[in-house]
Amino acid sequence: MADLFLALIHYPVLDRNGRIVTSAITSLDIHDIARSAHTYDVKRAYIVHPLAEQREFAATVIDHWRFDFGRAFDGRRREALETLKIVDTLDDALADTTNVASVRPLIVHTSARTSGGMKTGELRAKMESADAPPIMILFGTGFGLAPSVRDRADIALDAILGPGDYNHLSVRAAVSIILDRIRGR
Amino acid sequence: MADLFLALIHYPVLDRNGRIVTSAITSLDIHDIARSAHTYDVKRAYIVHPLAEQREFAATVIDHWRFDFGRAFDGRRREALETLKIVDTLDDALADTTNVASVRPLIVHTSARTSGGMKTGELRAKMESADAPPIMILFGTGFGLAPSVRDRADIALDAILGPGDYNHLSVRAAVSIILDRIRGR
Repeated sequence: MADLFLALIHYPVLDRNGRIVTSAITSLDIHDIARSAHTYDVKRAYIVHPLAEQREFAATVIDHWRFDFGRAFDGRRREALETLKIVDTLDDALADTTNVASVRPLIVHTSARTSGGMKTGELRAKMESADAPPIMILFGTGFGLAPSVRDRADIALDAILGPGDYNHLSVRAAVSIILDRIRGR
Repeated sequence: MADLFLALIHYPVLDRNGRIVTSAITSLDIHDIARSAHTYDVKRAYIVHPLAEQREFAATVIDHWRFDFGRAFDGRRREALETLKIVDTLDDALADTTNVASVRPLIVHTSARTSGGMKTGELRAKMESADAPPIMILFGTGFGLAPSVRDRADIALDAILGPGDYNHLSVRAAVSIILDRIRGR
């Protein structure tokens, strides 16, 4: 079974007009993604943000649960938050993963607009094969990852679809669904 | 294909000590669940809360996107929010569903602690059979649905599991994953 990593990207991402922007970290993203990541045995989930103030905010949210109120209140949430690592750039996340896994991971791009890419079932089979390399899945906040991020990926995953054409899921929902499709029982 | 409904229950739910409490509505629950519900063709998603102030808060969040800022900002989010209906009790939700679907729905209970219940794959097959009745899936906020809610359900769905035993998902993640498992492409 391939080791699994994920990165929640706040720059470069798109706004609703397709402009490249930096999005803000939200505390609920941190909690939800930590809990989903830990449920599906993600080795490390990176919160990627270029601004120091935003990284400090994320660290405060995590430390609150690690050391203070949260430790006593809910040990399961603390355990999940230990899956997280806050970094400046995608390159920092990849360097850390390469260090942890001893080999550069395959980079998987996700988008609500991709078709003709890899299906989640294929990715699951690939990850379950013997000698599968580690996988790093990239998720965009805002209105999705900037095109320059896709250029760096080895695999583009098809958009998640329900019965119809509408698929305007939150990034929290997209993370959960993709992890479940590739790692759920 | 069976018509699908869901209810996000804020009372009666459990707190971390297993006491029966009323939880607060959060605006992000409203948004995430509307977007996931609309993606997976849920006919109506009920926000169930016994307190008028909380129902008014939920209505304000929805109206903000229907009439004001949100209408111009993001039409896709407005469309999703039209899937929602705010009600006082589970009975009110069931009465509305029975009215919309012309027959009482099968009630499906979800919990992070159920084992030996129905698997999501079985529920999917059941819903895809000819003449399948409408289905109403109940989700608990806080630390999950109170036992009295389970007593009202026709089906208890098994807990969502990843590779290990940890499955402390947010209700937003649980809704997304279950909808994807029973309705995803």
